[in-house]
Amino acid sequence: MLQSKVAYKTYKENPSDEEARNAILLIKAGFVEKVSSGIYNLLPLGLRVIQKIENIIREELNKIGCQELLLTNLHPKEYWEKTGRWQKFDVLFKTQSQTGSEYSLAPTHEEIIFPLVKKLISSYKDLPIALYQIHTKYRDELRVKSGLLRNREFIMKDLYSFHRNNEEVEKFKKIVDKVYLKIFKRCGLDAIETYASGGTFSPFSTEFQVPTPAGEDTIYYCSNCRIAWNKEIMKERKCKQCKKELQELKTIEVGNTFNLGTKFSEAFDVRYIDKDNKEKLVYAGCYGIGVTRLMGAIVEVYNDEKGIIWPEEVAPFKVHLISIYLKDEKKNQKIKKISYELYEKLNKENIEVLFDERENVSPGEKLVESDLIGIPYKIVIGENYLKYKKFDFKKRNWKYYKQINLAQLLKILK
Amino acid sequence: MLQSKVAYKTYKENPSDEEARNAILLIKAGFVEKVSSGIYNLLPLGLRVIQKIENIIREELNKIGCQELLLTNLHPKEYWEKTGRWQKFDVLFKTQSQTGSEYSLAPTHEEIIFPLVKKLISSYKDLPIALYQIHTKYRDELRVKSGLLRNREFIMKDLYSFHRNNEEVEKFKKIVDKVYLKIFKRCGLDAIETYASGGTFSPFSTEFQVPTPAGEDTIYYCSNCRIAWNKEIMKERKCKQCKKELQELKTIEVGNTFNLGTKFSEAFDVRYIDKDNKEKLVYAGCYGIGVTRLMGAIVEVYNDEKGIIWPEEVAPFKVHLISIYLKDEKKNQKIKKISYELYEKLNKENIEVLFDERENVSPGEKLVESDLIGIPYKIVIGENYLKYKKFDFKKRNWKYYKQINLAQLLKILK
Repeated sequence: MLQSKVAYKTYKENPSDEEARNAILLIKAGFVEKVSSGIYNLLPLGLRVIQKIENIIREELNKIGCQELLLTNLHPKEYWEKTGRWQKFDVLFKTQSQTGSEYSLAPTHEEIIFPLVKKLISSYKDLPIALYQIHTKYRDELRVKSGLLRNREFIMKDLYSFHRNNEEVEKFKKIVDKVYLKIFKRCGLDAIETYASGGTFSPFSTEFQVPTPAGEDTIYYCSNCRIAWNKEIMKERKCKQCKKELQELKTIEVGNTFNLGTKFSEAFDVRYIDKDNKEKLVYAGCYGIGVTRLMGAIVEVYNDEKGIIWPEEVAPFKVHLISIYLKDEKKNQKIKKISYELYEKLNKENIEVLFDERENVSPGEKLVESDLIGIPYKIVIGENYLKYKKFDFKKRNWKYYKQINLAQLLKILK
Repeated sequence: MLQSKVAYKTYKENPSDEEARNAILLIKAGFVEKVSSGIYNLLPLGLRVIQKIENIIREELNKIGCQELLLTNLHPKEYWEKTGRWQKFDVLFKTQSQTGSEYSLAPTHEEIIFPLVKKLISSYKDLPIALYQIHTKYRDELRVKSGLLRNREFIMKDLYSFHRNNEEVEKFKKIVDKVYLKIFKRCGLDAIETYASGGTFSPFSTEFQVPTPAGEDTIYYCSNCRIAWNKEIMKERKCKQCKKELQELKTIEVGNTFNLGTKFSEAFDVRYIDKDNKEKLVYAGCYGIGVTRLMGAIVEVYNDEKGIIWPEEVAPFKVHLISIYLKDEKKNQKIKKISYELYEKLNKENIEVLFDERENVSPGEKLVESDLIGIPYKIVIGENYLKYKKFDFKKRNWKYYKQINLAQLLKILK
């Protein structure tokens, strides 16, 4: 894409009303715009990142037989009264229609998916079933100072699975736990499986925690066993498996998996006829990934003093191609020709490229902005190309450029 | 996909609380679930249709240089007060945070995108710019009896364009009008460009109306000039171009395009520095397509007494492959083998196929359900295949099956 055509704006100064590094960088680099406390617009660059994360999630969940759907965000009051959460859920936005109907704005979707699944299943043959959506959620958070990590409106992937008994939930939860690690890995993050409270039927839920000094959570990590416990549930700082002293880490929670047992099936009377012809309650699990939060977490982990450093699979573009114009118009014609040819070539090879073709922007500004935006690979075409017929090439996190030819370049990028 | 793995349920009886044919069929065929008046869940089959419509829209809008973003749905009260619409907009859902902040739930996004564009542009060089999103909208409608056509929560594509002057808006609006006809055409609909009220700067807005007896709108159509006028703005029933008598049609509005002039630029003081160094107000247009409504409109147009007949580009699957089992177990082994082989073959060729491989469902039930779901091409493998080594093949709207071999089949489907 031609950079002059992209709707974005970068800023030299930090925004005055943000404390979190992720929000500061995402705003400065033109990925998001702050509308109000805890509320952001996703600009085209930001949406590209979100869509890449979403597609990684879809790919991995579809592989294990999950099906995507889309549930309403206006939840009639009656559904939330059935679970007792209309009053108890502490971050529930509420609204009312002209006709007097009251709704909550979805902060989570158990109240909607259990009545749906009640209609879909009748026999044990209909189980297991695993349904997910990627959708906006609303939470009336009091504290919203962590940028994209804790918002009033955000995108979440929520998966719900339904089974015949507790063992099958636990078995499926283990499969999801593994898939989650893979999803986070593809997003560039080494998440740590962490025991946490919140289990209804099993003693623990699982949190996926990414270490970063900006984290809101604290975990006790065993580097030996590669597992952790949320500080909240630990009395002593020793690994429950190997007894080793645990390491205290600040972390961001990017996902969680819960065994819900029969809690919601009871509230909505979701039953199935088992092989023995008896009617039984359905067992369920729920599994969340904060999608916009994940983008924030990635930025917290991958940045330096110059800007963001996107991991390849979630970068808005793979390559940033930059033309550096000189004072000599004749030379510039050559630089332009070579740059546009390479741009076409990369497009043809289906390599996603952002091409900074702008003529009214200084070389210094272009390079500073490029580091801020943080596309993984950078190709610079300027004076050096004219001298050596080679491209200046570097990864965003390299200190120096390498001079390489077209064949070498394509080999690296394909 | 294997049909036994799809989360859906079909119904023989019409739902008791729906009047509109689109909702009756979409519920009976397992595409949507009604949660409450004007509020529906999209089940996996329904979401597949929606995602196909969305991708058609993306493809066509990206071609004319529009960029996708995602705007917040929680709109701070201040923004809506600036345009005077906090009180005046008649279908505005409102909510309030624990901290006292008030929000509207987005029914449209002018109040959010104009302040954003104010930040993105400064010079005439930054114009034109065209930004769109595909996102949930909320409207507190009083009348919600038309199924998917008028909901409290729905998916909409909204595009906003920003220009230097009125002529450029009109020029771009004409381009969008053409693209809209193409988008609807790809969705199987011959939409009629219709003059309507609502123009702020130009005397008319344009509505895209699809004729169907279930339509809520009435237009006067000139078959000669192939244009129409919304009945609301016409005093006499004569074409303004050729003076011919106009035909009265019931229609569904699936899209509209507006010239907004400087109305919102004034409210949010969105200006640019022109070539002559003078600061001027930005001119804008807005362009909507109701995505969930479009699905409803397609079903209103494409159905018969047996069920839905999806146009190919928006069908949840291209092919419905159905195994018809007999009483003879030996024959069934052959039918099963042939069916699974064809299923693998079609998957390999990237032809989207739903395979009704279920063994506990009768042939009659399978075929009735297949007609209800309405996938465009049907392949039946049963007794006939064993006799003639040919597939029973028909399009959903054909009366009779044809017997064809694999080569013929692949030629048709590829």
